[in-house]
Amino acid sequence: MEDYYTASLLKQVAARPYYVRDERQQQQQSRPRPRPNSSAASSSPFFLKTRPDAIAAMAHPQTQFTHTEFTGDSSSMLRRRRTTVGRATAKAQLQRMKDSGQYDAFRLEKKPVYDKTRWPCPPPVYWDSDVAKWIEGACYLLSEEYDAEIDAAVRELADMIRGAQRPDGYLNTWFTMEEPEGRWSNIRDKHELVNEAALAHSNYYKNNLLIEPLEKYVKLISTVIGPGPDQKHAYPGHPETELALLRLYTATGNEDAYKLAQYFVEERGNQTGQDGLPYYEWERLQRGESPYQRPDSYSMHESSWYNQAHAPILEQQTIEGHAVRAMYLLTGVADLLCLDELGVKPYAHKSEYFEALTRLWNNMVDKKMYLTGGIGSMWQWEGFGIDYFLPQSSDEGGCYNETCASIAVIMLAERLLHLDLNSKYADIMELCLYNAVMTGLSLEGTAFTYVNQLASSESDKSRREDWFDTSCCPPNVMRLFGCLGGYLWDYGGSGRDAYVNVHLYTSAKVTFQVEEQQIILEQKSNWPWEGNTLFELQAPASTGVTIRLRIPSWARGNFTDQLTPSHKAAQVEKGYLVLPSAYTSANRAFSIQIDGFKPRFISPHPYTNQNTLTLARGPLIYCVEDVDNAWEQDHFRNVGIKSDSEVTEKEEEIDQMGERYIALRSVGWIRKIDDRTESESGIEPGISLRQTVVAEEKELTFIPYYLRANRGGRGHMRVGLLRG
Amino acid sequence: MEDYYTASLLKQVAARPYYVRDERQQQQQSRPRPRPNSSAASSSPFFLKTRPDAIAAMAHPQTQFTHTEFTGDSSSMLRRRRTTVGRATAKAQLQRMKDSGQYDAFRLEKKPVYDKTRWPCPPPVYWDSDVAKWIEGACYLLSEEYDAEIDAAVRELADMIRGAQRPDGYLNTWFTMEEPEGRWSNIRDKHELVNEAALAHSNYYKNNLLIEPLEKYVKLISTVIGPGPDQKHAYPGHPETELALLRLYTATGNEDAYKLAQYFVEERGNQTGQDGLPYYEWERLQRGESPYQRPDSYSMHESSWYNQAHAPILEQQTIEGHAVRAMYLLTGVADLLCLDELGVKPYAHKSEYFEALTRLWNNMVDKKMYLTGGIGSMWQWEGFGIDYFLPQSSDEGGCYNETCASIAVIMLAERLLHLDLNSKYADIMELCLYNAVMTGLSLEGTAFTYVNQLASSESDKSRREDWFDTSCCPPNVMRLFGCLGGYLWDYGGSGRDAYVNVHLYTSAKVTFQVEEQQIILEQKSNWPWEGNTLFELQAPASTGVTIRLRIPSWARGNFTDQLTPSHKAAQVEKGYLVLPSAYTSANRAFSIQIDGFKPRFISPHPYTNQNTLTLARGPLIYCVEDVDNAWEQDHFRNVGIKSDSEVTEKEEEIDQMGERYIALRSVGWIRKIDDRTESESGIEPGISLRQTVVAEEKELTFIPYYLRANRGGRGHMRVGLLRG
Repeated sequence: MEDYYTASLLKQVAARPYYVRDERQQQQQSRPRPRPNSSAASSSPFFLKTRPDAIAAMAHPQTQFTHTEFTGDSSSMLRRRRTTVGRATAKAQLQRMKDSGQYDAFRLEKKPVYDKTRWPCPPPVYWDSDVAKWIEGACYLLSEEYDAEIDAAVRELADMIRGAQRPDGYLNTWFTMEEPEGRWSNIRDKHELVNEAALAHSNYYKNNLLIEPLEKYVKLISTVIGPGPDQKHAYPGHPETELALLRLYTATGNEDAYKLAQYFVEERGNQTGQDGLPYYEWERLQRGESPYQRPDSYSMHESSWYNQAHAPILEQQTIEGHAVRAMYLLTGVADLLCLDELGVKPYAHKSEYFEALTRLWNNMVDKKMYLTGGIGSMWQWEGFGIDYFLPQSSDEGGCYNETCASIAVIMLAERLLHLDLNSKYADIMELCLYNAVMTGLSLEGTAFTYVNQLASSESDKSRREDWFDTSCCPPNVMRLFGCLGGYLWDYGGSGRDAYVNVHLYTSAKVTFQVEEQQIILEQKSNWPWEGNTLFELQAPASTGVTIRLRIPSWARGNFTDQLTPSHKAAQVEKGYLVLPSAYTSANRAFSIQIDGFKPRFISPHPYTNQNTLTLARGPLIYCVEDVDNAWEQDHFRNVGIKSDSEVTEKEEEIDQMGERYIALRSVGWIRKIDDRTESESGIEPGISLRQTVVAEEKELTFIPYYLRANRGGRGHMRVGLLRG
Repeated sequence: MEDYYTASLLKQVAARPYYVRDERQQQQQSRPRPRPNSSAASSSPFFLKTRPDAIAAMAHPQTQFTHTEFTGDSSSMLRRRRTTVGRATAKAQLQRMKDSGQYDAFRLEKKPVYDKTRWPCPPPVYWDSDVAKWIEGACYLLSEEYDAEIDAAVRELADMIRGAQRPDGYLNTWFTMEEPEGRWSNIRDKHELVNEAALAHSNYYKNNLLIEPLEKYVKLISTVIGPGPDQKHAYPGHPETELALLRLYTATGNEDAYKLAQYFVEERGNQTGQDGLPYYEWERLQRGESPYQRPDSYSMHESSWYNQAHAPILEQQTIEGHAVRAMYLLTGVADLLCLDELGVKPYAHKSEYFEALTRLWNNMVDKKMYLTGGIGSMWQWEGFGIDYFLPQSSDEGGCYNETCASIAVIMLAERLLHLDLNSKYADIMELCLYNAVMTGLSLEGTAFTYVNQLASSESDKSRREDWFDTSCCPPNVMRLFGCLGGYLWDYGGSGRDAYVNVHLYTSAKVTFQVEEQQIILEQKSNWPWEGNTLFELQAPASTGVTIRLRIPSWARGNFTDQLTPSHKAAQVEKGYLVLPSAYTSANRAFSIQIDGFKPRFISPHPYTNQNTLTLARGPLIYCVEDVDNAWEQDHFRNVGIKSDSEVTEKEEEIDQMGERYIALRSVGWIRKIDDRTESESGIEPGISLRQTVVAEEKELTFIPYYLRANRGGRGHMRVGLLRG
């Protein structure tokens, strides 16, 4: 028998529930990790002592991730990917920021690369926020594994950012260099209000080098924008500021930041906010612009839905507009509610906003989300189409699915879990992570996709790029993986009661304290390939620990039977199997077996007019690529499958990368269309009943969607195949 | 047995091939028809003697229709509809033009109704052309049946138009009243160049009252626009001028008109036409407008494809942009080629332009046309989407199908038949006429649709309106029906050889002359209900007449067998059954039996992702309406049918109108979708394999699409039903 861990992806962890590979974990933990200033602070996410009460309350993944360590060997998917991001992605992106001029922009030296032709917002306007995402991601990754080059770059950037700030607190390199008189003149389109790198920086470096300019900038913004008669009644054209401000408040207690975030949320979409007009319209009149002069992303002259500004949030019935903006906005709203929920800061309108949040979430998930977790079918505004409009590709009418948008869905879902512990949010979080987001990063970690269609076409092949003019997606992936540990679970407690809610299964260990008592929960899993997860809990005998385990919606079977040791009284509450403290006291080690890793066919809602089948296995969505099916010449447009086809599994490895995965195989069929024009065939013009399903069978090989575009090939790929 | 003609729509005309209902025809022919000036001129479409050679050459339906008389009794569909248009539609529209201010605009009196808020083109800018269409239609209809009120209105309008012309020849009421300094400043968006009413007027009134100002205006335009260094290198933002100019040339020999039309066609889309820029871009710079300031119909800032100006016509590979403009433009191009084809005016680039015409036609018919003959899936630009993007309704992502667009397809198809006698063009002409166009007019003739979707939805019910702000469609229908006789056939000859190519079957009679010899061909048919058509030919023995009969693409069987008397040697050439003069000499009366009137299911191309079935019978496309299927509450969104379902026919009558038709009945099924959200059902978010086809059967009653929205109801309608 070959070595158990290397010969097969199917490890059946729970078959040996008490097996612990101590020596490898020791190796991993002993990797040197230089930490700046105080290494003792590593288990506490907050060094700024202003708000210790907020630690448990605002359990942001971006701060709590340091409590979690990915364990398992190199075949553990999340650990492996996070390592790649830390080692390869961060450096490759640093180089590209330097090549593109983004890095040096903070020196306030104009470069010829400053292309100003794109109106109203040339790409350099976004640069500050792209770089900020990289800084944020770098700080997260440094805390896992030190790298001198990355460290030096972050320090230099921090110095440059401080130097780029104007004496009054203003901080935006593009406006400062190109249009100093134009500040605050186009809040709708120009990104003056996006930045959340400082928090990550302060957490890692234990200093105020970025917090200080940020607070100075917040002070300035609070002067310019607000409800006062001489203030602008504005809100960000590109939301994200809201959540950054609330993180700042959580970390430092900065009341200006809280008030500003609350104002942004509540003022947004006010149709009479400034001199009886919607703010963006008032602002446009100040600029003397025609209402018909509009960015390319505004399809019609009244398209304030693009920025989610068509109505107050409480009145919005459907999720609309630019997908990334919508998700960041709702994440900010959720943060406001979390601060109340967790007792940090009461919020009077919590229940109405929660209702709006769930209404918009449900509209998105039920009617506007692809089965990969991608959102945004419309290229023009990189956002939502009408209900059920979910074509697979640009040659079918759309499919955008920006990587950033699904990252933001993950952020929002995590917040919603604090407000309403329901596996439906965690299911979507996992769906996005393993499919719509992971597909955005190459295996080497150095090439990216911005758009993640479900099918390629001649004009949009399944290909990766090194970098983009507007390069939010690459550093956003880096940022997400940097703090990924924070998304696995949430936990806390008081007195002698502690809890851990487990959202994602992998191999990882979390260490936290409740009333000075240290609790450690470790999970070992071969997820997403297998459904067994082994847990080991360490806690003082005096502390009762309730553990809740997510049962994915696609899981099958009776879950209480699949717990080892069994616990007949265990209940599933809103999708979480609840293990009471009596059980966890009696069973420090236990395992759960989630069934659902047999390949299955799924299908979009019938109203999408997508009469297709897609293979899924566990949380993974599969696709076909020409690399495995070299006979294909037309992007699998005429390839079908039947839901009763037999599907077999095969373990495969991508040689160069050592990446291992389970491929699926089945037999498909080829659609032959009598495609002659009416003049050739005598059939009715544009009309045919001659769609013939020919018995030509083809062996089909499927790979996980996240692995697409990693092995060369001609860029032909498809997720949904014709339903036979 | 009840009376043969009134008891049944299914008359089987050819079962009695020699039956002629003389007395009824006499009644019809004896209806008094006052004609102005010279009643003797009625058989000649041109009174201006400048170009007698053009008579046969440019057989425009708009002039030749006077050769054709609709016969048959009141149940003959085209005759009946034309009568309604002549009696009810013309008067109702006249009243609405008066109510709206359109009529009085020609007095150059500003009215408060002049809404200038819509940029760049408030509706009154279109008014001249809307009224001109009405004048044109009225002149056609007057020649069929005199009406004093209509006659007086046309005369008054002619006077007003003459009075509205500026001394230099300029003629546009909106610019003259509202923006006299703005003439020619925005040829892209503002309709200064549309008018073809004058020709119809001159044909009917036998005077130059409108030709004169038109020629004066053409002279002015030829000064302003042209290839000269001081001229504008422009072309109409809304094509239609090209075909009007060529009609003017054909009628009068006005060389300026020909040259201008040719220039418009050849200059269009020149990317370096004016100072090295595309004309519309140059013009925009002159106006000092940002490229991002654009009408709502321009989705992005570079959308010159909207006006078919993105490339020279010869280089355009696919049909793009506003559907009506595209069709008028290509009709103008076809006219240019027809003038060469028929020996009137040689054109050096005929073959290249013919190649472009057929390329664009084929792209449209094969990939961008609905099975009703509707074109334009995109609401925003009232035009073409990408290949195969043909959703049925706005809640599926689009479906515009403007009535005018399909009228213009008919115009283009008729021209193409002169260039290439191929039934594929006549098939589309008929498809559009009986479906996409006739559905735009109510049975009373007084209510209209502008948009003709294939399925209703809550936001876009199947409803009619009295009038529109931009009201091109209602008078366009009037114009088409006014000269409909001209579309039935074309004919001509020289020496002792004459020919008639029969495109459309109905009951009608054409009278024309070849070398002073009179030829009369009469057809009697119960089309579109039955496939029998009886022909009777009158011609001097010395003249051989070749007759070609269109065989529709949907017809089945061996057509030479279905000719009575038979003629085994008859050949079908490009979809026309050719009856040589030997046959027609020997058989002055003969009949053709077209099989294909058994109800059949048709389906859009599979690439449309429309997995639907539609019932058709002969040239008619059927739909379901809630009037007949009162149980339906959701626009038939979940109603299906199977292609092997039995379909029965039933003759029906709409009581108030006496309109009779054949309804179809079949058994359908209801799709039940497990539509619970994931939180309710535990199914995967946004994903379902639970689309269940429940055995709940429903009786379905279908009516012809052209009859929809005539009998009240709740506005629920659908053409394509789910394929079971």
